[in-house]
Amino acid sequence: MASSVAEHRHAVTHMLRALDALPAETVPLRDARGRLLAADLLSPLDLPLFRNSQMDGFAVDAGSVESTPVTLSIAGTVAAGDAGSTAHVAGTAVRIMTGAPIPDGADAIVPVEDTTVADDRVTIDRGRTVGEFVREAGSDVVAGELLVAAGTLLAARHIAVLAAVGVETVSVRRRPRAAVITTGAELVPAGQPLSPGQIYDSNGIALATSLEANGAEVVSVARSSDDVTQFRRLLDDALANADLVITSGGVSMGDFEVVKETLQPLGGQFGHVGMQPGGPQGLTMVNDVPVLSFPGNPVSTLVSFEVFARPLLRKAAGLPAVVAADLPITRDLTSVPNRRQFLRGRVRDGQVDIVSGPGSHLVAGMALADVLIDLSAETTTVSAGTHVQVWAL
Amino acid sequence: MASSVAEHRHAVTHMLRALDALPAETVPLRDARGRLLAADLLSPLDLPLFRNSQMDGFAVDAGSVESTPVTLSIAGTVAAGDAGSTAHVAGTAVRIMTGAPIPDGADAIVPVEDTTVADDRVTIDRGRTVGEFVREAGSDVVAGELLVAAGTLLAARHIAVLAAVGVETVSVRRRPRAAVITTGAELVPAGQPLSPGQIYDSNGIALATSLEANGAEVVSVARSSDDVTQFRRLLDDALANADLVITSGGVSMGDFEVVKETLQPLGGQFGHVGMQPGGPQGLTMVNDVPVLSFPGNPVSTLVSFEVFARPLLRKAAGLPAVVAADLPITRDLTSVPNRRQFLRGRVRDGQVDIVSGPGSHLVAGMALADVLIDLSAETTTVSAGTHVQVWAL
Repeated sequence: MASSVAEHRHAVTHMLRALDALPAETVPLRDARGRLLAADLLSPLDLPLFRNSQMDGFAVDAGSVESTPVTLSIAGTVAAGDAGSTAHVAGTAVRIMTGAPIPDGADAIVPVEDTTVADDRVTIDRGRTVGEFVREAGSDVVAGELLVAAGTLLAARHIAVLAAVGVETVSVRRRPRAAVITTGAELVPAGQPLSPGQIYDSNGIALATSLEANGAEVVSVARSSDDVTQFRRLLDDALANADLVITSGGVSMGDFEVVKETLQPLGGQFGHVGMQPGGPQGLTMVNDVPVLSFPGNPVSTLVSFEVFARPLLRKAAGLPAVVAADLPITRDLTSVPNRRQFLRGRVRDGQVDIVSGPGSHLVAGMALADVLIDLSAETTTVSAGTHVQVWAL
Repeated sequence: MASSVAEHRHAVTHMLRALDALPAETVPLRDARGRLLAADLLSPLDLPLFRNSQMDGFAVDAGSVESTPVTLSIAGTVAAGDAGSTAHVAGTAVRIMTGAPIPDGADAIVPVEDTTVADDRVTIDRGRTVGEFVREAGSDVVAGELLVAAGTLLAARHIAVLAAVGVETVSVRRRPRAAVITTGAELVPAGQPLSPGQIYDSNGIALATSLEANGAEVVSVARSSDDVTQFRRLLDDALANADLVITSGGVSMGDFEVVKETLQPLGGQFGHVGMQPGGPQGLTMVNDVPVLSFPGNPVSTLVSFEVFARPLLRKAAGLPAVVAADLPITRDLTSVPNRRQFLRGRVRDGQVDIVSGPGSHLVAGMALADVLIDLSAETTTVSAGTHVQVWAL
C-alpha cells in the first residue's frame, strides 16, 4: 500500500463511517451542553402556560382606563406563584406582579410607574389598550411545536428552553468512544526515572487530549512494549470497549514493529502515505472496530491525528468543521518532491511563519505552532509572499 | 442608578477585576487541556535526551560508505529502548531502529531501504554524509529553554511537549468559581407537577451551562422563594464558596423583590440600565465577592449574561474574546428610543434575520437565535440591507 493523503483519507472515512450513526443515549439536561440532539424535541406544553403579566403594576379592564387620570378601588393582589386572584376585575384594579396570572375580566396591565396608590385606591395617569403588557398563553410556543431540532449542538440557550418546558433528560447521540495504545520498548510513563535509551511517552496523553478536544470520549490509554502478546492483550481490551482504536508506533520498516506484525495478519493495510511527517500508516478493521495506526514520532502522531482523525470525529460530534485559510508566507522555502508536507506554522498579523524544522521528532516546535501549513505533493519551492493553505490547530 | 450599557459594563468590569488575578493551582497534566498556564514552563532536560536514529537502518561511519556499493560486517543490533550498543562502529555497521541510541563511532544512518543483508554482512547501495538521519541531543530543546509560556491556553500540542519532558503536573490559573441563585415563588424544579401560577425554573441551568461554556466552574445552583431569610441563607452559602455570585429575578419594581431587598441594605446598587431586554440590574460587593443581579425573565437573564458576564469570564479563563461582526439585515425594523436593543437573530448566507419578537419571555425564540443583534440607544429605525452589529451566541 502506497497512497496519497487523499486516497488514505478516503479509506479512513470509509472505515470510520459507523461513527456518523452512533446510537442515542439519554443524559440529564444539566450534562447536555455540547451534545448533539438525537431527535426533534417538541414542546410538551404551551409557553407561557397561562396568561400572565409582563410588568409589576395593576391589572385592569382597558375600557375602565380609557380617560385618565382615573381612580379605581384595589380589589386584591396577585403575586408571581399565586394560583390567581379571586377578584374579578370589573371597574376595579388588581395589584399584580410580573409573571403572575391575570385575573378574570382584566385585559391590560398598567405599569406601577404610571400609578399612585392611596389607601385602597389607585390613581392611573395613563391608559392602556387591550392586550398591553399581557403575555397570552402559548404566545411563545404551543404544545406540540418544535423546540429544538435533531442534530442541534446543544448550547445554554437550547437548554434554557428545554428547562422552561420541564424537560429533565434528553436523547443525544453517543460520543465516539476511543481507545489509545502507544507502543515502543523505549517508552516510560512520567514520574519514573529514565534509564539510558528511554524516553517519556507523550503520544498517549497527546492523543487522549486531542480526542477529547474533538468530541470523543476516551475509554482507555494504554502503553505496550514491543511484545506481540502484550500488545494483543491490550488491543483486545480496547476493541471490547471502543468505537475506534488509535495506536502509535510499530508501523514502519524496523525489526520490532509490533503493531504491523499483529494487525497485518488480521487484514490490516500497512504502507506509506505520500506525506511528511506521518508517512507510515496502517488501517485495520477488527471485530467491526476500526483501528488507525499512526507512526510513533510525536509530531507524526499529532499531524496524523489532525489530518485523518479530526475531521471525522468533529463531524460525528456535530462540531463545526475546521476550515482551511489561505495566508501569505513570510519566507522562501523548499519542499520534498512527491510528499505532501505539513509544516508547523504560526500566524501573526495575517501572515504565516514557520516555527520548526520538518523533523518529526521536533515536538517543542509543534507546541509553538498554531497552524499546519499544507503544501501539495507537487510543490517544491515557495517564495515569500505566496499564499499557502493553512489549517488551524 | 440609571445608566447606559457602557456605564454598567464599566462598573461590572471594575467589580469583577479580581477574576483576572485568581491564584494558581496544580492539576495533573492529563486534566490541563483548556486551562491557562500560570507560569513559564522551562524544559528540565534536553530533547532529544540522547543522540538517536531518525530511521530504521544501519549506523555507520560516513567515511566508510563514501564509495558505494560497499559491504560491511554487521557488528550488532540496537533497538529503541536499548541502553546502547556495545559495538564500536569502525568500518562496520550496526543495525539500528528509529529512536535507538547511536553507537560510538557512528555519525550517519543508512536507511534500511538502501541496504541488502546476507548472513552477517550488509551491502550498502547509497552513501550518506556526516549527520544524515542523526538526531542530535538537544536539537529540539535544550534544558532550561522555554517550552510553554505563561498565559498559554493549553492544547494537546502543549501537553504533548510537556509529557515528552516528563512533566506530571502543571500550575494553572484557577477557574473562576461561580454560584447561581434563582429567585421567584413561582419557580418549580423540573420533574415536579406545576400547580396553577407556577412555571419551571430555567434560569438556574441556563446560567450554570453558560458559565461553564465560558470557562467558569459552577460550585452551586440554588433556588430561592421570595422569602428574605431563605435567600440570605443561600446567599451566604454561595459567598463562602464562590468568586462570583449571579442571581436572577427579584430586582424590579414589584412588592416582593427579594434580591433588591436583601442586597440594597448591604450597599448594592440597583436600578435601570438603558437596554432591552435586561433593564433592571443590580451590583453588590459582599465580603469582597461580587454579586451580579440579573432580571428574572429567561431572555433577560441570558442576554444579561452575554452582555455583562461573558466577556469578563472569557478574559479570566484565557478564552478568545467574542468579536462583533457587521452584517446586513434582511428586513426593516423599529427600535425603542433611548434603549440599546439586543434582538435575537439568525445568520444565513451572510445576512442576519430576526427570529423572535422583543419580549423578554420569548425563550423559544432565543433557542432559534445564533446571534444577538445590537442596536444602539439612538437607533429608532433600520432599513433592510443596512449593516448591523451582531454578537455570536
